[in-house]
Amino acid sequence: MSRPSVSALAAPLVEALIARAGVLRLAISHSANGARIVDAGIKAAGGIEAGRLIAEICLGGLGTVDIVPSPRFSRWGTSLGVRTADPVTACLISQYAGWSLSEGDFFALGSGPARALHAKETLYEELGYRDSAASAVLVLEVDSFPPETLIDRIGANCGVATDKLTLILTPTRSLAGTVQVVARVLEVALHKAHALHFPLERIVDGLASAPLPPPAPDFITAMGRTNDATLYGGDVHLFVDGPEDEAAKLAEGLPSSTSRDYGRAFGEIFSAYNGDFYAMDPMLFSPARVTVTALSTGRSFTHGAFDEAVLDRSFA
Amino acid sequence: MSRPSVSALAAPLVEALIARAGVLRLAISHSANGARIVDAGIKAAGGIEAGRLIAEICLGGLGTVDIVPSPRFSRWGTSLGVRTADPVTACLISQYAGWSLSEGDFFALGSGPARALHAKETLYEELGYRDSAASAVLVLEVDSFPPETLIDRIGANCGVATDKLTLILTPTRSLAGTVQVVARVLEVALHKAHALHFPLERIVDGLASAPLPPPAPDFITAMGRTNDATLYGGDVHLFVDGPEDEAAKLAEGLPSSTSRDYGRAFGEIFSAYNGDFYAMDPMLFSPARVTVTALSTGRSFTHGAFDEAVLDRSFA
Amino acid sequence: MSRPSVSALAAPLVEALIARAGVLRLAISHSANGARIVDAGIKAAGGIEAGRLIAEICLGGLGTVDIVPSPRFSRWGTSLGVRTADPVTACLISQYAGWSLSEGDFFALGSGPARALHAKETLYEELGYRDSAASAVLVLEVDSFPPETLIDRIGANCGVATDKLTLILTPTRSLAGTVQVVARVLEVALHKAHALHFPLERIVDGLASAPLPPPAPDFITAMGRTNDATLYGGDVHLFVDGPEDEAAKLAEGLPSSTSRDYGRAFGEIFSAYNGDFYAMDPMLFSPARVTVTALSTGRSFTHGAFDEAVLDRSFA
Repeated sequence: MSRPSVSALAAPLVEALIARAGVLRLAISHSANGARIVDAGIKAAGGIEAGRLIAEICLGGLGTVDIVPSPRFSRWGTSLGVRTADPVTACLISQYAGWSLSEGDFFALGSGPARALHAKETLYEELGYRDSAASAVLVLEVDSFPPETLIDRIGANCGVATDKLTLILTPTRSLAGTVQVVARVLEVALHKAHALHFPLERIVDGLASAPLPPPAPDFITAMGRTNDATLYGGDVHLFVDGPEDEAAKLAEGLPSSTSRDYGRAFGEIFSAYNGDFYAMDPMLFSPARVTVTALSTGRSFTHGAFDEAVLDRSFA
Repeated sequence: MSRPSVSALAAPLVEALIARAGVLRLAISHSANGARIVDAGIKAAGGIEAGRLIAEICLGGLGTVDIVPSPRFSRWGTSLGVRTADPVTACLISQYAGWSLSEGDFFALGSGPARALHAKETLYEELGYRDSAASAVLVLEVDSFPPETLIDRIGANCGVATDKLTLILTPTRSLAGTVQVVARVLEVALHKAHALHFPLERIVDGLASAPLPPPAPDFITAMGRTNDATLYGGDVHLFVDGPEDEAAKLAEGLPSSTSRDYGRAFGEIFSAYNGDFYAMDPMLFSPARVTVTALSTGRSFTHGAFDEAVLDRSFA
Repeated sequence: MSRPSVSALAAPLVEALIARAGVLRLAISHSANGARIVDAGIKAAGGIEAGRLIAEICLGGLGTVDIVPSPRFSRWGTSLGVRTADPVTACLISQYAGWSLSEGDFFALGSGPARALHAKETLYEELGYRDSAASAVLVLEVDSFPPETLIDRIGANCGVATDKLTLILTPTRSLAGTVQVVARVLEVALHKAHALHFPLERIVDGLASAPLPPPAPDFITAMGRTNDATLYGGDVHLFVDGPEDEAAKLAEGLPSSTSRDYGRAFGEIFSAYNGDFYAMDPMLFSPARVTVTALSTGRSFTHGAFDEAVLDRSFA
């Protein structure tokens, strides 16, 4: 299968976002060298709809994020639904926050289409994908503006002039940031499938949902809630090719309940490890419940479960 | 924050509605002086999708109304989801039915973007907003066509030529009318927040849902059902700035259960007051359940509850 | 009421589908005489979003198919929502799989807008509808490409040059096929209403939902699941004109539970009749639960119920 250009597909969505900046309460500015900076929650208010649109940009124009009323969790009545016509391209090639960027005190993980222009992560070699496009867009989950030198470097790394680069800034504590992180519920499942060595080319389609948590001004609390939405409220359905027993094994391995750290809210675990993120079990980061359908036989395997008590503790 | 022009944002939605009039079973006619009249349920059949689009026009192009299957209420399997990027502008400046219009025997409450061109309600002074636009659209929840003189007066009040005015007529008893009234579930919460003297500029974002009731040919029954959908089935989540204790107080004060009239269906209360609408407690008009998140601390406060028994009695 | 041209309304949706073929993983080819063939699951992978868009084409551009997270059924967390501004035109004139096509070993039931150009089924005479358009699109639920002679005949029957004909092929076993069949949940109710001699012109509006089953490679299993989604998980709400007692009678007659074959999964019934589809009770094919609202009085009648145990047995 030849893969589409996620930067080309995202470009019109970026222009539409900027055209509606006033309504979406986004502040648009430009760096000295002309890169567009979209403030979606630092000084600007941003909001839930801005976050939804940014999430669709992050999916490389290949996915849909719906925000719908749902009674799955009694107190948190809004769910995000994530669908994509091509989950591996949308979630791993584009959406995954895999580009580590730093300059002086500034640190950020870049996500979205521009990553595939840089294409230095090992994933791109593995998937044999490198994008090429006239413009680039990168989402940074940060609470301050990146330094000029870093902006120029991102442009150069992507092979676009700085004035063809758009950076979207979404603090974890913001409404837009909350939405765009929770919209990674499907990506988290694909990333863990990859960590479990399931062949990505066998993942044909995927659907996911997670409850929308309220944002929190404290970074750790905010990060905790957006993670808990997936860990204890996320639901993912993957449709895969290949032998049925491998689909069954994937379903068994994917849910967050397989992790030694499962059962406590993210913030509680983080504290227990004295704030050392890298001491946490990386296998924790996965949806609460996973169904895998083996397209070769039609059988489905469901593992994991929701934990509303943890969500209530984390979100309130 | 500078606010967008709700009339300018709604204008393309009005043209799209009229372009699809045949499919949506709307009848378009013109007054003697050239105002466009959209009949969405008087002689024309209209329908649920027409009501959804009219509700989005009423929100000044700033909101989304989704109609989705939901098992929240066992017998009434369809919910409306209402979201807006800017709740105060969408719901109070535009959607609220606050323009009292009468001429001879004809009486109507006008709602939607054109109100902000007239801008004579005290709310506009308070919010410092007055719109100016090349065209105007007003929604009237009526069962008959307005007289010519009134139409001309509306145009003059809005500062547009009569042939730049569109009036959309949605009887309470119609499918379109039912949808566009229930889509006010978020507005009802904002209106009551205002009545409770909560500073409107602190309301940053909002999400709401309510079950879709079946229409009724009798005006009182129809009005009862659309109100009960909010009073006993409405769910609203507001995200607000400012001190946490004021968010908590807002959440406590907002739900319909705070009203002395709470507990009976709207029609039963209306009868008990011998049909005197103004004898009813104005504080009744609010969603069944409300969650308010204080963005300053990240804490959420939930009050009120759904009452499915009242919904079943009212809707069946 | 004059009815719109379903072929004209669907034409831009067909072009949009083809423009996104790469992203949707559809394979586009041409027959010798220039008809466009859209492979949505034979050799091409297709997917859920492709199925959703094909379902909206099948509804003649008059309906919306939403795919949303829903906790109605515990293990199957995704529901399809189907709405249309004009159910009889969308579902019966366009979507119903009523055009029987065969040539040699090839057999297919054609569905979608082109049926109304051919307009040889008795339904068209009854409804007084015959479409005329510059292009035609027909959906075939098949697992192989149709023979050239049949393609030419379809074009001739529709009164369009072969190079103005688009055929969309969706195997029952495919993801796209699964979605587009389950999206018939509203049509199934209208078809049975017709079989029960309820006057179609009285059906004003309709809403429906059904759970999304996983596809199965075996034709009988796949057919069973897509049917069971409707028979045991389908929910339909019709809004009808006319006397209340006739609405009540319609609600009583519509649900699948009225059938002698109700209670077992489709595959079990099919086996019990030794694979003779035509021995099955045709009245079985209807939604699990039906609500009919009599617009003349506002009363609603609900009959039938969901059966999650049958869904679990059928889908897993």
